[in-house]
Amino acid sequence: MKPELIQKIVDIRSRVVDCRASGRTTGFVPTMGALHAGHAALMERARRACDVVIVSVFVNPIQFDRPDDYEKYSLNLQADVAFCAARNVDLVFAPELKEMYPSPQHTYVEVPRVSDRLCGEYRPGHFRGVATVVAKLFNIVPADAAYFGEKDAQQLAVIRRMVADLNIPISIVAVPTVRESDGLALSSRNQRLSPAERRVAPLVFKALEAARAKIAGGGRDAAEIKEASVALLRAEPRIRIEYFEIVDAEEMQPVEQFQGPVRIAAAVWLGQTRLIDNVLIDNAPIDSVPISTS
Amino acid sequence: MKPELIQKIVDIRSRVVDCRASGRTTGFVPTMGALHAGHAALMERARRACDVVIVSVFVNPIQFDRPDDYEKYSLNLQADVAFCAARNVDLVFAPELKEMYPSPQHTYVEVPRVSDRLCGEYRPGHFRGVATVVAKLFNIVPADAAYFGEKDAQQLAVIRRMVADLNIPISIVAVPTVRESDGLALSSRNQRLSPAERRVAPLVFKALEAARAKIAGGGRDAAEIKEASVALLRAEPRIRIEYFEIVDAEEMQPVEQFQGPVRIAAAVWLGQTRLIDNVLIDNAPIDSVPISTS
Repeated sequence: MKPELIQKIVDIRSRVVDCRASGRTTGFVPTMGALHAGHAALMERARRACDVVIVSVFVNPIQFDRPDDYEKYSLNLQADVAFCAARNVDLVFAPELKEMYPSPQHTYVEVPRVSDRLCGEYRPGHFRGVATVVAKLFNIVPADAAYFGEKDAQQLAVIRRMVADLNIPISIVAVPTVRESDGLALSSRNQRLSPAERRVAPLVFKALEAARAKIAGGGRDAAEIKEASVALLRAEPRIRIEYFEIVDAEEMQPVEQFQGPVRIAAAVWLGQTRLIDNVLIDNAPIDSVPISTS
Repeated sequence: MKPELIQKIVDIRSRVVDCRASGRTTGFVPTMGALHAGHAALMERARRACDVVIVSVFVNPIQFDRPDDYEKYSLNLQADVAFCAARNVDLVFAPELKEMYPSPQHTYVEVPRVSDRLCGEYRPGHFRGVATVVAKLFNIVPADAAYFGEKDAQQLAVIRRMVADLNIPISIVAVPTVRESDGLALSSRNQRLSPAERRVAPLVFKALEAARAKIAGGGRDAAEIKEASVALLRAEPRIRIEYFEIVDAEEMQPVEQFQGPVRIAAAVWLGQTRLIDNVLIDNAPIDSVPISTS
């Protein structure tokens, strides 16, 4: 069945409030459109857990550090609504820009420590824009739970920390990354890759997996493990590495040795396209010490 | 009747959610304790408008720019609860520090433009701390309306902007400043004044009123109006002026000439005590141009 398309804040909020008042559970999947199987996994997870599933489709200008990247995010709302229909989504919230930002945004939510490294280092203001729009969306769509992909691991960590620190009454559910059969993590950016770039793109996941295997095999020296994976990536001249790091999964700070959950995270450029990916290691075997504290 | 004292976030939130689910209107008065007639005016206003009145008592460490100022805020919870009882408050939320900040706060809400001038210029981080704790409190006490005094005019402007920008579903109600018979605005800080300081303290309001009278009489040159009031304050050697400004009431930016609502706002030091006050001019008579835009 086709989901109901809602464009006004006042309408979506009252719908969600009414759902909750009538005892129905609500699950929220915030997106920037260009929906693919990664988003489908979020919707399906919400669908299994909740009575009412709400998807938002909004390309948030304040999280883009480069105007050309924002402009490349062309929205095809009709296609996105059809995509949601096929996943039995109940409500699609697709506000106009002016509805979300009726006047200059003066208020920002910042999560500095968690945002400082990795993507935060290379995309100034990105996580501030993400945290701010997600704080807005959580006030607009006051659902029981919200669903985010692990592929954007730092975003997930920023949002989790924001929700905890600001006492936002919503559960954050992390959904595993969906991959192509050759390992490439799904992303709306993949469609910008040339055929030659697409062929080498799975090397990012291979380099992450190589690091994971080393840790599983007892490796404990982060620098050594990183070096081997970086060498794998360097062997491919089309790939330019932005970062390759092993960080704690909560604050995304580089670790020297391992303890508790860590993420191995990478960002690379393939031509004009930036790709990110990561793997989570839930039970790193050996005690560790964070490199830096603030 | 004595209000119910609640110390846990989970308890106060479920109480407020239950109230709203049962159709009762809820009014919230956030305070830092040391309650006085200014707070009473907030409670009485909430009492008239709402079925259930909630007062929070929490001295928020992250909004203090000077540790000694924070330490001077000694809390007498028993007295504050008795004060609330006399105003027919229903619920007092008085969390421990660890309840509000169980781990280091990494997330901050910033409202830079509105926070930049006046108190924000002299109290670095103050409005960041205010906006952050109020964002937390609005998630913890999801009331229909929250009540703030006009005496803290910049705080009011910061909170109003935050609520609008982050789509927080709460109405902000401004309550006029309560004054002693000699004009001194009520503040918990007044009790720190020596008798000699207390005698000259009403001069702040007199200087604000002098400026208001000039505007009412057709004055239109902000610099000239300020100069006359500053001279009044300078005549009293116990007073050290921090700022005396005429600003627009929404973004708290200095204006050269007047249009729409403006505030005349001052901060002074009397010995070790900092006092602030302001008056609102709702219908400034003449067209104006803001000095600065960002």
